[in-house]
This record gives sequence, structure tokens and C-alpha cells, in this order.
Amino acid sequence: MTDYGLLEPGTHRVASMCDDDALLRCLVEAEVAWVRAQAAVGLVPEEHARAVSAVVEPRIWERAFDPADIAARAEAGGNPVIPMLADLREAVRTIDPEAVRWIHRGLTSQDVMDTGMMLMARHCLRVIDAGLGAVADALAALAGAHRNTPAVARTLTQQALPSVFGLRCARWLTGILDARDELARQHPAVAVGGAAGTLAGTATVVEPLVDDGGFLSPGDPDGRIAQEVDRLNAAWAAELGLAPAPHVWHTARGPIQHLGSALAGTASAMGTIANDVLLLSRPEIGELREPTAPGRGVSSAMPQKQNPVLSVLLKRTALTAPQLAAQLFVAGSAYVDERPDGAWHAEWPAVRGLLRLVSSGVLHCQELVEGLQVFPEAMMRNLEAAGPGVVAERISAVLAPVVTTADPGISGKSAVQRAIGEGAGDTTSTVELLLGLTEGARLPDGRAVTRELVDGLCDPGSYTGLGDHLIDAALQRYDQD
Amino acid sequence: MTDYGLLEPGTHRVASMCDDDALLRCLVEAEVAWVRAQAAVGLVPEEHARAVSAVVEPRIWERAFDPADIAARAEAGGNPVIPMLADLREAVRTIDPEAVRWIHRGLTSQDVMDTGMMLMARHCLRVIDAGLGAVADALAALAGAHRNTPAVARTLTQQALPSVFGLRCARWLTGILDARDELARQHPAVAVGGAAGTLAGTATVVEPLVDDGGFLSPGDPDGRIAQEVDRLNAAWAAELGLAPAPHVWHTARGPIQHLGSALAGTASAMGTIANDVLLLSRPEIGELREPTAPGRGVSSAMPQKQNPVLSVLLKRTALTAPQLAAQLFVAGSAYVDERPDGAWHAEWPAVRGLLRLVSSGVLHCQELVEGLQVFPEAMMRNLEAAGPGVVAERISAVLAPVVTTADPGISGKSAVQRAIGEGAGDTTSTVELLLGLTEGARLPDGRAVTRELVDGLCDPGSYTGLGDHLIDAALQRYDQD
Amino acid sequence: MTDYGLLEPGTHRVASMCDDDALLRCLVEAEVAWVRAQAAVGLVPEEHARAVSAVVEPRIWERAFDPADIAARAEAGGNPVIPMLADLREAVRTIDPEAVRWIHRGLTSQDVMDTGMMLMARHCLRVIDAGLGAVADALAALAGAHRNTPAVARTLTQQALPSVFGLRCARWLTGILDARDELARQHPAVAVGGAAGTLAGTATVVEPLVDDGGFLSPGDPDGRIAQEVDRLNAAWAAELGLAPAPHVWHTARGPIQHLGSALAGTASAMGTIANDVLLLSRPEIGELREPTAPGRGVSSAMPQKQNPVLSVLLKRTALTAPQLAAQLFVAGSAYVDERPDGAWHAEWPAVRGLLRLVSSGVLHCQELVEGLQVFPEAMMRNLEAAGPGVVAERISAVLAPVVTTADPGISGKSAVQRAIGEGAGDTTSTVELLLGLTEGARLPDGRAVTRELVDGLCDPGSYTGLGDHLIDAALQRYDQD
Amino acid sequence: MTDYGLLEPGTHRVASMCDDDALLRCLVEAEVAWVRAQAAVGLVPEEHARAVSAVVEPRIWERAFDPADIAARAEAGGNPVIPMLADLREAVRTIDPEAVRWIHRGLTSQDVMDTGMMLMARHCLRVIDAGLGAVADALAALAGAHRNTPAVARTLTQQALPSVFGLRCARWLTGILDARDELARQHPAVAVGGAAGTLAGTATVVEPLVDDGGFLSPGDPDGRIAQEVDRLNAAWAAELGLAPAPHVWHTARGPIQHLGSALAGTASAMGTIANDVLLLSRPEIGELREPTAPGRGVSSAMPQKQNPVLSVLLKRTALTAPQLAAQLFVAGSAYVDERPDGAWHAEWPAVRGLLRLVSSGVLHCQELVEGLQVFPEAMMRNLEAAGPGVVAERISAVLAPVVTTADPGISGKSAVQRAIGEGAGDTTSTVELLLGLTEGARLPDGRAVTRELVDGLCDPGSYTGLGDHLIDAALQRYDQD
Repeated sequence: MTDYGLLEPGTHRVASMCDDDALLRCLVEAEVAWVRAQAAVGLVPEEHARAVSAVVEPRIWERAFDPADIAARAEAGGNPVIPMLADLREAVRTIDPEAVRWIHRGLTSQDVMDTGMMLMARHCLRVIDAGLGAVADALAALAGAHRNTPAVARTLTQQALPSVFGLRCARWLTGILDARDELARQHPAVAVGGAAGTLAGTATVVEPLVDDGGFLSPGDPDGRIAQEVDRLNAAWAAELGLAPAPHVWHTARGPIQHLGSALAGTASAMGTIANDVLLLSRPEIGELREPTAPGRGVSSAMPQKQNPVLSVLLKRTALTAPQLAAQLFVAGSAYVDERPDGAWHAEWPAVRGLLRLVSSGVLHCQELVEGLQVFPEAMMRNLEAAGPGVVAERISAVLAPVVTTADPGISGKSAVQRAIGEGAGDTTSTVELLLGLTEGARLPDGRAVTRELVDGLCDPGSYTGLGDHLIDAALQRYDQD
Repeated sequence: MTDYGLLEPGTHRVASMCDDDALLRCLVEAEVAWVRAQAAVGLVPEEHARAVSAVVEPRIWERAFDPADIAARAEAGGNPVIPMLADLREAVRTIDPEAVRWIHRGLTSQDVMDTGMMLMARHCLRVIDAGLGAVADALAALAGAHRNTPAVARTLTQQALPSVFGLRCARWLTGILDARDELARQHPAVAVGGAAGTLAGTATVVEPLVDDGGFLSPGDPDGRIAQEVDRLNAAWAAELGLAPAPHVWHTARGPIQHLGSALAGTASAMGTIANDVLLLSRPEIGELREPTAPGRGVSSAMPQKQNPVLSVLLKRTALTAPQLAAQLFVAGSAYVDERPDGAWHAEWPAVRGLLRLVSSGVLHCQELVEGLQVFPEAMMRNLEAAGPGVVAERISAVLAPVVTTADPGISGKSAVQRAIGEGAGDTTSTVELLLGLTEGARLPDGRAVTRELVDGLCDPGSYTGLGDHLIDAALQRYDQD
Repeated sequence: MTDYGLLEPGTHRVASMCDDDALLRCLVEAEVAWVRAQAAVGLVPEEHARAVSAVVEPRIWERAFDPADIAARAEAGGNPVIPMLADLREAVRTIDPEAVRWIHRGLTSQDVMDTGMMLMARHCLRVIDAGLGAVADALAALAGAHRNTPAVARTLTQQALPSVFGLRCARWLTGILDARDELARQHPAVAVGGAAGTLAGTATVVEPLVDDGGFLSPGDPDGRIAQEVDRLNAAWAAELGLAPAPHVWHTARGPIQHLGSALAGTASAMGTIANDVLLLSRPEIGELREPTAPGRGVSSAMPQKQNPVLSVLLKRTALTAPQLAAQLFVAGSAYVDERPDGAWHAEWPAVRGLLRLVSSGVLHCQELVEGLQVFPEAMMRNLEAAGPGVVAERISAVLAPVVTTADPGISGKSAVQRAIGEGAGDTTSTVELLLGLTEGARLPDGRAVTRELVDGLCDPGSYTGLGDHLIDAALQRYDQD
Repeated sequence: MTDYGLLEPGTHRVASMCDDDALLRCLVEAEVAWVRAQAAVGLVPEEHARAVSAVVEPRIWERAFDPADIAARAEAGGNPVIPMLADLREAVRTIDPEAVRWIHRGLTSQDVMDTGMMLMARHCLRVIDAGLGAVADALAALAGAHRNTPAVARTLTQQALPSVFGLRCARWLTGILDARDELARQHPAVAVGGAAGTLAGTATVVEPLVDDGGFLSPGDPDGRIAQEVDRLNAAWAAELGLAPAPHVWHTARGPIQHLGSALAGTASAMGTIANDVLLLSRPEIGELREPTAPGRGVSSAMPQKQNPVLSVLLKRTALTAPQLAAQLFVAGSAYVDERPDGAWHAEWPAVRGLLRLVSSGVLHCQELVEGLQVFPEAMMRNLEAAGPGVVAERISAVLAPVVTTADPGISGKSAVQRAIGEGAGDTTSTVELLLGLTEGARLPDGRAVTRELVDGLCDPGSYTGLGDHLIDAALQRYDQD
């Protein structure tokens, strides 16, 4: 079976980190590192560890591993570690037959599979973190640059209040920083449990380090074996750049589930940006446009169109990630025994799918926000077209208390709202109607309700709220991150 | 990017139907068939259609299409049809430059993509249908063969009532027949809508067939163009073995969603079988065992173990399919415009994922049920171990009305239940206790409550309900299917 | 615990069909109908059946059933049937102590629960079907009325081609008709299986109808008991207006899953309408507006706003239904034994949630489409603003073959596309540029490329494709439905 | 509409925290606290704040709020805050008409809704944390008490290796501690953004605190208004016992999504315990039994059965939570604008659903583990029944290197495995066969392979791995938590 990513456009960007060749490499590296870790703690002579390490050399690798063949043979045992291991042993046998027996000692398939997946995750998380950093840089710059670019704020699809475009960027930035913080909390770890999570086999492996009279002594009364297992665990983790196994997590899947949720949250934060760009780059709104690139966004049938492809792909990712994250919890609902009968297997494609979508997505997002075309005049045009309705909140707050109405049954608020409604979006008429309602009135602070005052109340540019403050707060958090 | 299925063991079995090479072939075949359909309705001279058809010859194909390259280039337009089309045109140009202009005329990417996916679906559905047929055959045989094999029925994990193993098989069969019926209702169709679902481009294509004064006439007053478009639609469908497009389904995704649900339902039906096999082949229960095969179910660390791998993979599939089916509805929630901005893209991997998992799953399921090892003696042992509790329902129904208790505050039912409880699973003691409760009593029909009668009541084998009837009903439905 | 629907606005409309009072009534009615069915087949004297039926009289009901209390007591057995049954028996005892023993005979909790849920489903499906009928009526009327209302078709957010608004309505209609067909295939059935799906208890119930020597005869050699069970099944179904149990579906959950998927598909079809209305009623687009109603769409802070609340609630429904449908398949993945240990319980809120959301949603949808405000002039304005780009497909198809370019390296298609690009959306300039490219050219049919011809090519109104045909096809299907 | 929890047995336990009455109280309390916060910062005279606070007095509350009516009226505006607010104002009007105008000033519905939900979350999180604490206590005690209780470890359903029951408890404990840590990171915060997230209205509210010339000055040049808004935010949070709003999170939904994932992770950790209990309390295995309680686990048809209802309900919860968590990410995929058109509404039932299921679930889990009945003799019986296969790993590790086989084509490992296979689970025969293979052999350390040595190798009790160490590690983490 061979997939190239035809159905997941854009993910080719991260192929080298998370396609099956990369995964196979992670699995083999996990096994190799285990032998090297044994060497590090004094269990394996250095030359044998070196011999095992040699399998990652391209010349040997090519002959040793055929991923398609391993994938096919994975069916028999239900996972790819078993056939990979057979091939690894075979390859090492031709280099150093002595070295074979150190391979995989004390581990079980799940240890290697979980560790290999975490190694892949660590590779991806680096790319994601760097990408989110660049996204944050670009958004911070946009937020700062557009802190005085008036734009209409929309809620439930309708024009609501005046705002500035920089504030929208600050909100996007906040979403990204949240996602990044959550990802920063993920510390992919190796998995060490042995065949049934008892560390029995692993204990046997380290026994030679402890002169205790041998394999028949039940348990580990003085804790020295446990100490050596911990040392081996730490050495393995160090070899791979992962965290040591905090405990046996064969069935306690928090680490996998939290990682999945953090990735889904990242997809969500990027999806919000994409949704806004998709909307605001519609021709009828025209406030934003995606960066162009040769050939990008071309329609097969309509030459004039420029499709916002980066945002489309990000939206695709935001629509896909939720089910992948759910998959991990669904799998979680079926864990049983010391190692389960299908739940574990159901996690793999979801974990990889999330890593792949989010790590390529972050590259798309970076390209999108770094090159985003902003049209302040369109923003202003849309804001002005919204008419005095967008400042109705303020007009009402200031004038409703001082309106004098003939009909006592009509509240000041109702009268003001009615005037704004009758103004039908035209500022001049609205001002007239409001002046009619407030003839001779004075505000609580004594000021008279003049035309100039009402004009000011109707000016959207003077009611953009605490945009500056909110932008500064987001930028401050960005600076500290 | 290259995936071989390392993370989805067992799916290699259906690689030739649903990996990316197969998908690419489906997409190209859709384009080729479109030219042939044009030839069939008289729009394209036969020799040009033949020239286009030539691209599927292996020699030309190999040089024309590099799926990895197409996947990478799919990013620019957001889908693989655009680069595939460029390569197809290029390939045809070298064969017959004249023929190029007939390719893709009047279609849009979505028409080709949706049609290509449906072609893949049709291939898979055939395999699935055949596989389910074989599964049904095997289950029908098991149901018939074990209609008199006593087994305990379990509810909420506890032993409940006597039953026969054949009835469980009949229930599995019913689930499979339901799934198969639902799949039989799926009629994958081509998609014809043109760039924006108006069929404008397609109409232009067929115009030469209608002598109507040309392209400037708005609409199609006499309906002849529509007629020709329908003919072309039907010809395309016939070339591909699909149903004609019933309407423009660019945004009406019922067909995709129903297909997905039918596939998820199939995964569910097979998952129920797998769950039962996984449970019943636990050593403590030992009623069933998976068929063995060389190397299958081997543990990397525990030589003695025989893991039920087929069932594990089926359970994996049952745990995975729900989110894939949900993905199609989630995508559905985001459809907008004449063609949407990400929702469509989010469907593809889910559709293929379902096809792949279910079509390989059905092969696993077939192998599982065809070779299932059944241990009637273990079933009998477990039934007997359950003690008279499993016939408490009947004991209570028969004896409770005739119990004579000293204490009028205790109902007959309570007295009987207490006796069964005190019997503590031992039939002899229970019979004694029940006889004590019913000394001298007579049943409504006049029979005395004798030891023989109470013995009979306590015999699980004589209270297996309407197993025969239920098995027959399932088999009858099977026969008619 | 008491919920009133605070978190699911709009669902109060269907409270009488699917709140807990309604559910409790369905459960009790299922039990009552079972006794009446026994009477119908001659097992229970009519007067006892009448006595049991009396519990649904308001006066008795009120005293007999306290749903909050039943809900609390449902914990002990894991389902509400057990405490409901206790209260039912208690209530009947006060009316007719003799009648008590006929209640629930031969059934298990799951039979009653599944049947009660199906009864609720049937009630809801009627409302949904009627609502979808009204939605279809309104959409058919809109499609017909707007078959000549030009509007721009948009794909991937961008203006793509000319179309007519009626075609969009026809597409919505098609989605609704698909959903309705799928729902029409659902035939909610009663569930009869007895304690462990063997029908043992049910067989005991009907034994008096068959003079066969009594309860000790194993099985049902001549099939007469099975025949009576079938009669009882049919009588029960008839009492409730449901279909007879087709088989024991305690663990074959196709019926539930298909129902869920059909409901989710309906939510999806309505969601597509909502998404389009939400987009097209944005002030910057202004092509549609929701019907207004007193107080609806009011913002708590912004008096001028009119929020499209009906569409918002429908979109909420479309975003919610997928996970509910998935829930049924997830539950399906955990079925095991004759009745499972949690999977069944996980279905209930999802089934009711779907019924509730979709049946209230269809009422919202009906109100939305029946009162939809359409602004043809805005549609025309947006179409014209799109400029000649939206007919680029046709311009290119007609003129590209006859362009004469100085540079042979530039294809006719490229030259035309470039001209349209340089025209920058202005029709007059574009026409000039195209005329410059085609000076003296003639079309294949001999016509000269005149200004009039190019003007015509640039007129979006004359390139609306087969809108009429597609609308007619949808209306024809609607008429036949 | 009225629901009592008929479909969610067991959730009545947390009704007072998360039913609609509780929610309504949270919403009203959020509004009341907002007025009190205004008083705290000096904006509202204390007596008016007191007047508003009076609405929570039962006497007034009862007359002021009818939750069913509010739920019905929630449809018009799409959320329950709008009608709640109308009723609140009405109620306050009768107490202190002056006080009305301070209510809800500067807030928007979403501020109140999000804050009210977070208040409900905080209430639930306290219960959950306490419950998980008690669960951890019980598991820690079990782990300690059973550190020497031999039990067989099972992987992929099959007996794998010897272990101790305490280790399984330690693994459960680890899952619970992980979940608890993740929940401890959730700090429900108030939401303050105003109508469109600009804080414009909120700024107007605090203006009186800043003598700056009034409402017409655009922005907040010296930051004093922002400072006052922050003070108000903090005061509100303090009134409610929540964290201050870290930023405007109207569209940055990380906080909601992380909360949901942490809750789903908790459900998953409890589900793993439930799955194990459900399995191990099957009569054929019999290692555990749920605590009994009067009436619990009773079957409506089978008097002898004791259904493990607590575990069933927990499994139900574990099967349900994943889709609820996914719902939050699906909603996240649809966020757009300053406040979205349906995505927000789609979150509410999912958040409450998770809180409700997990907070009641934790009570079930506490009861389950505190009263769990453990049967060490059954564990030993199952371990012994597994035969020497469960120590095959060790036998092979020790003996394979020293086996002498006649056929050099058969490795020592194969020979040992074959011997274990031929032993067919009988320890005596297996020992004989192994002795036959190793006659005269000596281990690397010089010891002879004696019968005593082989007997020892075959004793499962002496190969339980590092159970002690792993238990200690879990207990140490528990102690520090």
C-alpha cells in the first residue's frame, strides 16, 4: 500500500518528519538507542552498540528495511514493531552476530511503538513550535501596525461596533499563544514497561549490574534493580532526546490524549484565523487577501479566480482535527487489562494524523499571516457603510437618560433606538432625529446636547473601545513568551 | 510523502483498490471516460478518444504520472485533480495533440474528484459485498451447526439465562445482513455540475449537438441541451460502471454521508463479532478460539501467547470508523456557497479511510468466522458452572405462585429467590430448598410439585427459549438475501 | 435534576414529544400496550387490560409517577425502566390487584426502553416529516419564483459564475428531499427479546395458548409457540403504531444507528441552508434576510442589530448532530454479550438529542424558508460587481481558439485570461482588450467577432447555464415525493 | 421542556451543581456579582448593590425566575441570558428601581453566559477534585494492601506474565493522578469583552472613576480607563471565586477546550478502572466484585443476577465523554468574526454534559473503589491455571542459551518454546521436558541446571517483576500530590 498524500494536500511539507519512512526510522532509532543505552549503563560492550547503530547508515538501511513489506507483515502480529524487529536483527546479524542478542531485550512491542511515536511527536513539536513562533511574530507585527486601522466588529454575522483591525490580530495572537503554551507543556517520553508492564524482563536485563545472586530472587528487596532500571530508562531517553518514562503508561494514556488535545487546540486557533481570512477576503467585503504565489489558488475552470487556498487548507485542518482528538478518547474508553485488545491500535493513525496536519498547517499559517494583504480603506468603507447603528450602544448610553418623550409609555432607550432605526443607516438623518429627541436636554455633567456632541457620538472612529489596551496586553504576553 | 500502512496493519490487503496509486488511476479513468463519453454521444471523433484512453497503458502511465509529485503539487490548488490534469494533458499531447482539447471540457475539479472517489467506492463495495456474503455463509453454517449447542447467555457481563451458541451466531448474522442491506442501497454516482454547479460549461460542450444558433442564446428554452447533457452524464456513468449523477451534488452531500454511515454500520456489526470473540477466547472462558495461521498472533516477548489478532484488528476498525463517519457530518456542517471553502476537502481522507478499513476488515472477518474454533464442552462447562441461577426466571415463574410460606409478609417470589440464593449455585441443594418450599403443592394444571419436576426446572438445557425459531428466522432471511 | 432547555434554545418547541415527561409516557405506554397486546391474543381478560390502561388517565398518572424520583432511582439498576415498572405495578395494584401479574411478563428492561425510545422517535419523525414537507413546499416555491433572478455563484468564497437564485433554492430542496427519503426509510419497531434475547420468558407467557404439555418441554418442536410469540409481537406493535420487531435487536443496533445517521443527514441539509442564509444576509452582501418576529434576533447590547437567530440555531444543530450520530457508532463498537455493559446506556441521550434537535430544527427551518426575504436587486448588484471575470469561462471557450497573438509562445487562452485580468473587473475596458486580441477573427461557424458579440459574451445574464433544467428536475422530484 | 435525567442514570447526584436551576443561579449570580463588583470599585452605591443581591433570596427568587419560561424565551435571542436579564431587571425594579440601571452595564450576553458556565464549572471541579482525592486514597490503599497478591497480567486478552494485583491498582492510581493534575491546571475565569470584544461599553462604565473629560475622548491615552476595567474585572472575579479574565476570550476558546479535554481525560481514566472491574468481576474470572448496596444491580427479569452497575455507568461515561470533548473542537472550527454565528451555542450542552457526567462519575468511582471486593484466591487460581506459559519469558531467557539440541537448525529459544508448548500448561510435564533439553548444562555463572532450578523458573510467584518498585513510585507521587 502506498499513499503519497493525494487526499491531504499540503502535508507533503512535513513528509520527512511524519511519513512512514520517518516513522520506521523512529522505530528503528528507538531500538538502536535502547542498545546504546544498555552500553551507556555498562551492560553492552561499546563495539556491539556501535555495530547495531550502523544499521541507520543509508547503505545498510536500504538493504535492511522495506517499509511496504514491513507494513504487510505487520498484520500477523497487529503492529509494525514485530516485523521491523525481525529485519533489524537480520541486518545486525550480518554486521555483528554477537550484537543481536542485546536488541529489544526487556522491551515489548508497545514500548517501542509508543517511544517511536513520541520521537516522531518530538520532531513535529519542534517544527510546530518554531512555526507558531513565526506566526506570533507576524501577528504581533500586524497588531501593532493596525492598532489605529478602524474596522467594523461583527457579531453573529452582523455589524456590531467599531473596532480596529489590530485588535482582531491581537485576538488571533492570543489564540496562538494559548495553543503554544499548551504544546509547551507536552514532554514526549519514552515508554518502558516490558511485556506486561511489570518490568520483569527489563529487570532481568539489568541484573548483571547488581550482584544479587541471580534471577531467582523474587522482587527487588533492596531496590537496586529498580535503580538500574531507572538509569537505563534515563539513558534511553537521553539517547533519543525524550523525557524518561514517568511510569508505565501502557494503559494510562493521559500523555497521548493531552498531546492530541493540545494539537487539536492548535488546529482550532489556526482555524479561527482561516475562517476570518476566508470571510474577509470575500470580494463583497474585501478587507484582506491571502498572499499570492505562482500557481496558487488557480481554478481549473475559472481563470479569473484566486482561491484562498492556504485558508482553505487550514479550515480543512480545523474541521479534521476534532475527530482525531476524539479518536484518542474513544480509544481510551476501551483500555482494559495490562495492554488492550484494539484500543491501542486505534490511536496510531490519529496521533500521526494530528501531528501531520498541525505541523503542515502551521507552515501554511505562517505563510498566510506573514504575507497577509490588508486593505484599510475597505475596512473603513465597510465601517462607514454600517452607519450610526454601530455606535448605537454609546448613543443610547449617553442620550437615553435625557430624552424627553411626549408619550410616557415609551422609554428613553426605546425612543433612541427608534430614531436610529428610522435613520436607516444615514448619519445625517439620524443626527437630526436624535437632536429632535433631546432638544434642550443636558447631560448629567451639565453639558448641553449640541449638534457637535451628537455628531461626535455618531462618529464610529471615536468609539473603538480599549483596542489599544487589549493589543498592548496581547503584545506584552507575546514579548514574555 | 509516502505511507505504506505501517499504522494500519491489515489494510495492505486492499491496497490495489484504495491506495493513492489506485486513487490516481480512478481520477485519470474518470477523465478518460469523460472523453470517451463525449465520443459516445458524437462530440469527439473516436480516434481522439482512443488516443486519450492510451494513457492508461502501463508504458505511458509510468512516464506520465508521478503520484508523489502530483500530491506535492496538489497544495497549490488545494486538490490533486489540477496537477493530475496538467500531467494528463501533457501525456496526451505527446500522443495526439488534437485530443487534448477534449479533456475535462465542461467539468470542474470537484466533478472529477467526487467521481474518482465514487469509482474507488464502487470497487471497494464489490469486495465488501462479496466478503460480507462469505461472512454470512460462514455464520449461517455456524448458526445451523450449533443450534443445539448449549451456552450461557450473558447480560451486563453476568450469566443470565441458558441459550445455544447457534443463537449468538444468528445474532451476528443478523447484524451482518443489516449492514449488507444498507450497503446494497448505495449507488455510487458520477458528479456533473461544472465550475459552479450551473452546468454552463457542460452545456457549451454539448452545444454542437444542438443546432440552436449558438452560445449566446441564454438558457435552453426547448430543453434540447439539457437532454444532451443528460445523455453525456449517462454515457459517462456507463463508461465507469457508476450511476448517472442524479443531480448536482456539489453541496448536497447526502450520497457521501449515507455511504459513510453504511460503512460505519458495517464496522460496528463486525466489531460486535470481534468483541464477542475477544471475550469468549479469553483463557478463563475458552469457548472460542480464532483460526491460527503461521506467524499470526505471535507476541514479541511471550512465546506461549496466541493473540487474537484478527479480532483485535476488527475491534480497532470498529473503534475508528465512528469518527470517520462523524467527519462527513462535520464537513457537512460547513457547506456553503456553490462549492465550499474546506468542508469538501475535509471529506476525502474520511471516505477513503472508511473504504479501506471496512474492505480490509471484511476480509479479516471472513477469515475469522470461516475458521472460528468452537468449544462446545467449554460452553457447557460455563453453563453448568452458572448453576440454577440461570433458570431462576423459570423456577420463579412456575413455583412462586404455589409456594406456601409461613410468613405471609414474604411473597412466593421472594421465597423462591431466597432459596436460589441460599443454594449458592449448587443444583442439588437448590432443589432441596425448593422442594421444602413447595411440599404438597400442586401447579395450576393439577400436577404435583415432585422432585422430578423441580429437577427438570433446574436443568438449563431445557430452557433455551426460542433459539430454534430465532435461528430459523435469521437463516430464512439469509437464504432470501 | 431538572433541565428546562436553557442550553438548547428552541428545543422547547418539541418538549411535548421528547422531554422526560414524554419519554416516561412512552415507557409506560409500552408497558400498557404489552398488556393490551396480551389481551388481544387472548392471554389476558379484557377487563384486566382495561385496568392497566387506566394508569394513563391524568388523575391516576399524577399520583403514580414522579419522573424526578424515577430518574434518581434509575441509578440502582442503571436504567429508568426498573423504577418506572415498580411504580406502575404499585399504581395498578390499587386499581386491580389481579392485573399486576400481567405487566412486563416475558419482557426485559431493554425491550421496554428500546420500544419506548422508538415510540418517541415515531412521534418525532412525524413532526419532522411534516416539517420537511413544508420546507420543501417553500423551497419549491422559491426555486420556481426565482428561476430568472440572476445571482452570482460563489465557489471557495470567490465569485465564480453567473447563476440564478432559484438554482440555489433547488439545491437546498434537493438536500431536503434526500434527507426526507432517508428518514422515510426508518420504520421504528418494538423490541422483543426477553431477559437474554432467547425469548424464553416470552415463550412462557404464550404457553397457555398452546396446549403442549407445559413448560418443561424443551424448545418448540412444532413452532406453535414461536407463532404465538410473533402474534404477540405484532399485536404489541399495532397497539403502539410501530413496526413489529424484525428480530431480537438487543445487540444488532443497525436500526438505531441508521436512524441516527438519517437525522444527522437532515441536520446537515438544513445546516447548508443556514450557512448560506448566514452568509448572504451579511450586510455587505445583503441578498437575503431572515423573517423577523417580535423580539427575535435582538441583541442585549446593540439595539440596531437584527441577528439571524433561526439560522444561528440551525447552524448550532448542524454542528451538534455529527457527534451525536458518532456516539451511536461509538456505542456500537462496545457491544458484547447478549446485552452489553454500558454501550447501550451510552446511546440514549444521543438518540433523544438527535430527535430533539432535528425536530425543533425542522420547525425553525420551516419558519426560515417560508418567510425568507429575498433581495433580487442586491443579487444583481453583486453579480455586476463581479465584472466580466464571472463569464471568463465562456469568453475563453469562445475566443481563445481564434485569438491571434504576436508571440507564438502565448496561447490563446493565456492571452484571453490576461486581457480579462487587465480589464480589472471593468466590462468596457475588458471588451476593448478582447476586441484588440481578435481583430478580424471569425468563429468556427463563420461569424465575425464583433463588438456586439463580445458584449454579449461579457453579459453574465446570458450565461446562467442550465438553471432552468436543474430547477425543473428538482421540482419534478419534489412533485413526485 | 423538562428533563429529570431519565436517560442519564446517576447524574441526579450532582443536580444541585449542574442542572438548569443551578445554571440559572450561576447566570443570575454572575449578574449580581457584576453589580457588586461595580460597588467594590466605587461605581455603585452599596445600598443599590445590596438591593440587587436580594434577588437570590428564595422568596424573591421564586417569583422572579421561571426557568422553563426563560428557556422558552431563550429562542428569540438564541441564548438564555437575554430573558434572564429581563426578569432580573423586573425583579430588581420592584425592590429598588434605581438599582436597575447598574445591571449588566458594559457586558454582553456572552460575557454572562461564559462566566456563568465557568462558575458552574468551578463548583463541579471542586466536587471532582475531592472525589478524585478519595478515589486516589482508596486506590493507594489497595495498591499497598495488594502489593503481594499474585495475579496474572493479561495483554491482548491473553494471560501474559505473573504480576500482583497491587500493581494494577497502582496503574489505575497513576491514571487518576494524571487526570487530577490536568484538572488542577484549569482555572475557570470570568469573561469580560463587551458587545464586540472591544471593552467599549465596559470603558464607558468605568469612566466616572476617571476624570478625563468624558465619553467623547477616543481611546484611553493614559491607560487609566484600562486600569479601572482591570480592577472591575478582578473585583468581579473575586466576587465569584473565579480567575479574572486573562483576555477577551469570546473567540479564543482555549480555556473551554482545555477544560473539556481534561474532563474527557478524567472520564477515560475512570473508564479504564471500570473496564477492568467489568472484566474481572465476570463469574468466569471472579477476581473482583463491585460493592453491593440495597437494590443496586438488580435485574428486572433475573433475580439471581448482580449487575456491576457502578462500572456500567462509568463505562457509559467513558463512552460518552469523547464526543462531548470533540464537540468543543468542532465548535472551535467554526469560530469567526468577533462573536460567531452558532459555534458558541454548540458548546454549551457539551460543557455541561462533561461536567455532569464526570462529577457524578467521580462519585460512582469513589464508591466503586472504596468498596471494591477483592478475591486473592481467585487471582491465584487464575494465575496457576495459566501454567508455566506465563513465565516462558524468563525460562527462555535463562535456559535458551544453554540448551543442547541435536538439530543445529533449531535454536535454543525454539526448543524451549516447543517444550513449553508440549507441556500444554502442565507444570510437572513442562519441567521434565525442560530438564530433558538441558541435561548437564551449566548457566553462565557456573550453576548447574537442576530440577530445583527449573522448578523455581516455573514458579510464577517469583517472577512478578518490579511490582514493588512501581507501586512505591505511584504511592510516592500520590503522597506528594
